[in-house]
This record gives sequence, structure tokens and C-alpha cells, in this order.
Amino acid sequence: ELFVLTYGALVAQLCKDYEKDEDVNTCLDRMGYGIGVRLIDDFLARSAVKKCRSYSETADMIAQVAFKMYLGVTPSVSCSSAAGNEFSLILDKNPLVDFVEELPAERASLCYCNLLCGVIRGALEMVHLAAEVTFLQDRLKGDAVTEIGITFLRKAEN
Amino acid sequence: ELFVLTYGALVAQLCKDYEKDEDVNTCLDRMGYGIGVRLIDDFLARSAVKKCRSYSETADMIAQVAFKMYLGVTPSVSCSSAAGNEFSLILDKNPLVDFVEELPAERASLCYCNLLCGVIRGALEMVHLAAEVTFLQDRLKGDAVTEIGITFLRKAEN
Repeated sequence: ELFVLTYGALVAQLCKDYEKDEDVNTCLDRMGYGIGVRLIDDFLARSAVKKCRSYSETADMIAQVAFKMYLGVTPSVSCSSAAGNEFSLILDKNPLVDFVEELPAERASLCYCNLLCGVIRGALEMVHLAAEVTFLQDRLKGDAVTEIGITFLRKAEN
Repeated sequence: ELFVLTYGALVAQLCKDYEKDEDVNTCLDRMGYGIGVRLIDDFLARSAVKKCRSYSETADMIAQVAFKMYLGVTPSVSCSSAAGNEFSLILDKNPLVDFVEELPAERASLCYCNLLCGVIRGALEMVHLAAEVTFLQDRLKGDAVTEIGITFLRKAEN
């Protein structure tokens, strides 16, 4: 909970710093990227996982090992493209928003948890996987679930 | 570690926002206060501790239960005044600075972990204990240990 509240303080500070929601979102994503780039070493050391051999394995690893380790929740994973390079992580419960009731009206476009997208993108890049990571649905915006979309941009290098 | 890195991103953002170290320190303390005020409910619910009957018990509770719960470390506690209202929490290891090598020269007065002081102050205030909380020593500044000083400002209300 200390983490969750500290994250809230970070978002609040960025909202003070930037008027536009888009700028806050970009900033959170950029910060997350910097975190992911460093967090990957901690993840590989602590999880002792083997190399993934497919995008599908990678997505499962993020959901079942990384989310569990760092956020204490396990999103469900679904593949959303015939090409097999697009995945959704679906969170019924998002611990990062435990203390957030709803977004204020003037912050309707804020991706409150956008840091997570950056973290995933940064961490994947360090294992040579380029990806786009964005929120597709967000319970804070009235959606039924929170959904993070991951699109792998080129073939995984074995 | 996600928390530690996120905290680092928060401090970095504040260093961008404020030129003076003192302003960053004040801001971290103020943010921490807001967090402590909210965190206390979570702490009381999860720890199921009994009411403390003395400052000494309170200081032990912060060190042995709260620090353990939220940061995974247990500082040692010493009483540093004859009046029995000043205590030091001494940390041999401070997980919040795991990824910080040293403070940059131009940030020599930064209290990197000042958020913690605010958290303690805010949480204590919610159980009717006014206190001053400051860093007395900091390994980031070359001290041998990290020491947080807590001075209780009036009698505990039973």
C-alpha cells in the first residue's frame, strides 16, 4: 500500500506539472520505460525463468510471473490477432488504483497506470523484444475490466 | 523493487521541478504526510496491534512492525533523551536507496528518503501523536548508518 500511495503521489505531481493528460501519460510511460530497463535484471535474477520461445510464452510470463511478483495479481491473457503477435492482459483487479475512486472530470484522458506500459516495454526491449504496450480498457474510465494490450513488433530472437 | 524504482522516478521528477534541495525535501515530506494519513488505516487493519502505552512502545512498533511490513527491514531503536520523548531509528540497510549510488554533487542537501519522515509524521498524527521526524544521518551522504529521529511533541493521549 505504501507503493500504491507513493505511485498516487507521483501521478498527482505530474498532473500539477503538466496541464494536458497526454503529456502526463507520455511522462508516465517514459518513466516506466526507464524502470523496466532496470527492473528486468531483478526479474530475471529472482524468477530464474527460462528463455521464452514464443510471444505467447512471453505474454504468459509477464502475466503469471512478473505481475504476480511485483503487483501480487495475475492477469488473464488472451491472444487477439491471427498473426499471434497481439496479446491482452486482462485485470479484474488493479491494485495500483486501490485508493483512487474515479478520475476527476478534467482528467478524463489520463491513463493513470501508464507507468506499467512503459515498464513492460522497457523490460521487453532489454530481452530484445520490441513491443507497443497501451491500455485498451480501464476500469477507472468506466470499462468493465482493465486491459493492457501488448503488440510484439518483430520476430522474437532466439 | 518496482516500488524502489518508482520512488526514484518520483524524486527525479521533483528534482526537475524544484531547483533547491530544500524545496524537494519539503515536497517529499508533505507528500509523505498525505500518504501516512491514509496508510495508518491499512497498518492498523493489517497489523492488528494493540494501542501503545508509551512513546517507547510506539517507536518499537514503528520499527518492528511498520518498517518490516512496508519496507521489509527492521531498524534498531534507541532512546536519545532523558525526557524519553526522542528516539532514533537506525537503519543498516535502506532498501529505498538500492538503486542509488550516490547523490550528485549539485544535490548534496537532498534528503532522498524524506518521504518516509512525512509518512511517519502523518501516521502518528492520526493516532493523536504530534511528532517531528527528520533524518539525522544518511548513508547517501557518507554517514555510517541511516538514522531517522522522532521527537514526540506532547504526552501520548491514552
